[in-house]
Amino acid sequence: MIKILVDCFGGDHSPQAPVEGALAALRTFPDLHVMLTGDKLLLQKELEGKSFDKNRLEIVHAPEVIGCEEKPTDVVRLKRDSSMMKAIILLRDRDDIAGMVSTGSTGALVTGALVRLGRIPGVIRPAFCPLLPTMDGGLVGVCDSGANVEVTPAHLRQFAIMASLYLENVYGVQHPRVALLNVGKEAEKGDELRQETYKLLQETPSVHFVGNMESRDLLSGSYDVVVADGFSGNVLVKTTEGTALELLKKLKKDIYSRTLYKLGALLMRRMFQEEKAFMNYQNYGGSVLLGTSKVVVKGHGSSKAVAVEKCIEQAYRMEKSRLSAQIEQEIAKYEHYED
Amino acid sequence: MIKILVDCFGGDHSPQAPVEGALAALRTFPDLHVMLTGDKLLLQKELEGKSFDKNRLEIVHAPEVIGCEEKPTDVVRLKRDSSMMKAIILLRDRDDIAGMVSTGSTGALVTGALVRLGRIPGVIRPAFCPLLPTMDGGLVGVCDSGANVEVTPAHLRQFAIMASLYLENVYGVQHPRVALLNVGKEAEKGDELRQETYKLLQETPSVHFVGNMESRDLLSGSYDVVVADGFSGNVLVKTTEGTALELLKKLKKDIYSRTLYKLGALLMRRMFQEEKAFMNYQNYGGSVLLGTSKVVVKGHGSSKAVAVEKCIEQAYRMEKSRLSAQIEQEIAKYEHYED
Repeated sequence: MIKILVDCFGGDHSPQAPVEGALAALRTFPDLHVMLTGDKLLLQKELEGKSFDKNRLEIVHAPEVIGCEEKPTDVVRLKRDSSMMKAIILLRDRDDIAGMVSTGSTGALVTGALVRLGRIPGVIRPAFCPLLPTMDGGLVGVCDSGANVEVTPAHLRQFAIMASLYLENVYGVQHPRVALLNVGKEAEKGDELRQETYKLLQETPSVHFVGNMESRDLLSGSYDVVVADGFSGNVLVKTTEGTALELLKKLKKDIYSRTLYKLGALLMRRMFQEEKAFMNYQNYGGSVLLGTSKVVVKGHGSSKAVAVEKCIEQAYRMEKSRLSAQIEQEIAKYEHYED
Repeated sequence: MIKILVDCFGGDHSPQAPVEGALAALRTFPDLHVMLTGDKLLLQKELEGKSFDKNRLEIVHAPEVIGCEEKPTDVVRLKRDSSMMKAIILLRDRDDIAGMVSTGSTGALVTGALVRLGRIPGVIRPAFCPLLPTMDGGLVGVCDSGANVEVTPAHLRQFAIMASLYLENVYGVQHPRVALLNVGKEAEKGDELRQETYKLLQETPSVHFVGNMESRDLLSGSYDVVVADGFSGNVLVKTTEGTALELLKKLKKDIYSRTLYKLGALLMRRMFQEEKAFMNYQNYGGSVLLGTSKVVVKGHGSSKAVAVEKCIEQAYRMEKSRLSAQIEQEIAKYEHYED
């Protein structure tokens, strides 16, 4: 049985989305056990009238609420009875629990995970790895340190190793093609960080390094993993999402501007629905934390049930494939520099 | 008469695109004079059979060719008779020439402009400012230092001042709304560079600073100018262009997959043409260099005639509005730190 904690509060559609997502995942995976954290009464109410295997679902009472404005460090220190912190502490303390999923505050989750869970032996720093759909129907993972953190070539090499194993184990990508985000394709492009990282990745047999990637090629389908510093990784992912959303909005507005276009769009209705689904990040799961001692998946704050379900599936597959053990083994092959 | 040099070699469609772009600009602006640099015979051949005002066009013979692989510093030092370097040197030496347009190598152009032209008094470092179309029909300028260069808060403040004056003078934007590219909206987001820059921009009355911008909001129409370091600015602009292009490609492919969709698209043909034009960077001119002593506009290497025409128009309007003098005046109001 694989046990996954689901933080049922903190997201925009709580507790409905996490609860329904959990029930859907239970139906898919017969050896999954979910533990819902949050206010017991509210969770029981949400479960009322729904059918599920009672032996594979439990509620962990955690009534405290985290405010929007609370500092992550305060949340970790003071809100031990919140749905998120309760999950993190249980995950730390109980060997039988594999991982957790949360759609709450990213800052609190990352701080809590780093402080309470610790890292896989040898990992200098955990990394984020959100996924985006590519134009050939595949996926690309953007692996970075999270928004504010400075990185070194040694960090980026570990990111490349961890993200490769993640894509291979959870998504079945054979020999993931890894690229370094840079301002040009040539080896000598970019600042010292990129130049050094380029060299280091070339000397890393665990990684199928295919060179620098210019940001315009992210969705081309030529790459499976892109490693980046936290700031530019954030810009890369959010610009892609933002541009896709704005273009879809514009298309919709333009269609509604003329009857002829509305008629044309009617014929293409199914196609437009598919485009919309294609660009909807809810269908690609959450951003996993790679390198923490236990599995942590961060869903978008606006996640609906289907998105939470995908996050639970990610956590389930990470555990099932024993990703952490593989990361530990692969990382150990290289000298690393503690920071 | 406003004299603009047009480097007619180095771009993908040379010399046809620069020559035709120059002729089109001549027709639009009666007080424009263009000087075409490049191989005289080839240029004369290109002009054959075309009608234009011979008093407002001259050819400057510059037969040397710059190879793709040549280092910018070598080009600047050794290729003085190339169409690009000849233009830069003429621009430096002759007071009657206002600016230049080139679609050749960015590296050589920037190096040449910095080494030979120098800066407007007070400007610490020139900046690039490409423009992108926003969803409400406006434009947004992304002002950064170019790919590799480290920046300080003092640099970014100057970028904000220069780009504001550019948008105001050349595009008629009143009180341009300036934002700082960051990983979140709140003042305390980002690293030390962003936090310090945020404070400095708040204390800069010459700039209408509206706070941090998350990259997903670039096209929203809420901002006129975004300032960024060279690396993340590059990622921001290229990701936007790349995502738009990939989505259009996907849409096209999907339309061709079914007869019904093709029929629908036929009704929407005009709309799709407009979307395509909307997303075509060729229609928004080039990336201007702000802060050099003379006007320099860099067109995309793949620029066609219409794109070169826009670049010439940009250079013309920059000179016409006496942008350099305004930049000097505004920059002088603030203490600056030489690097």
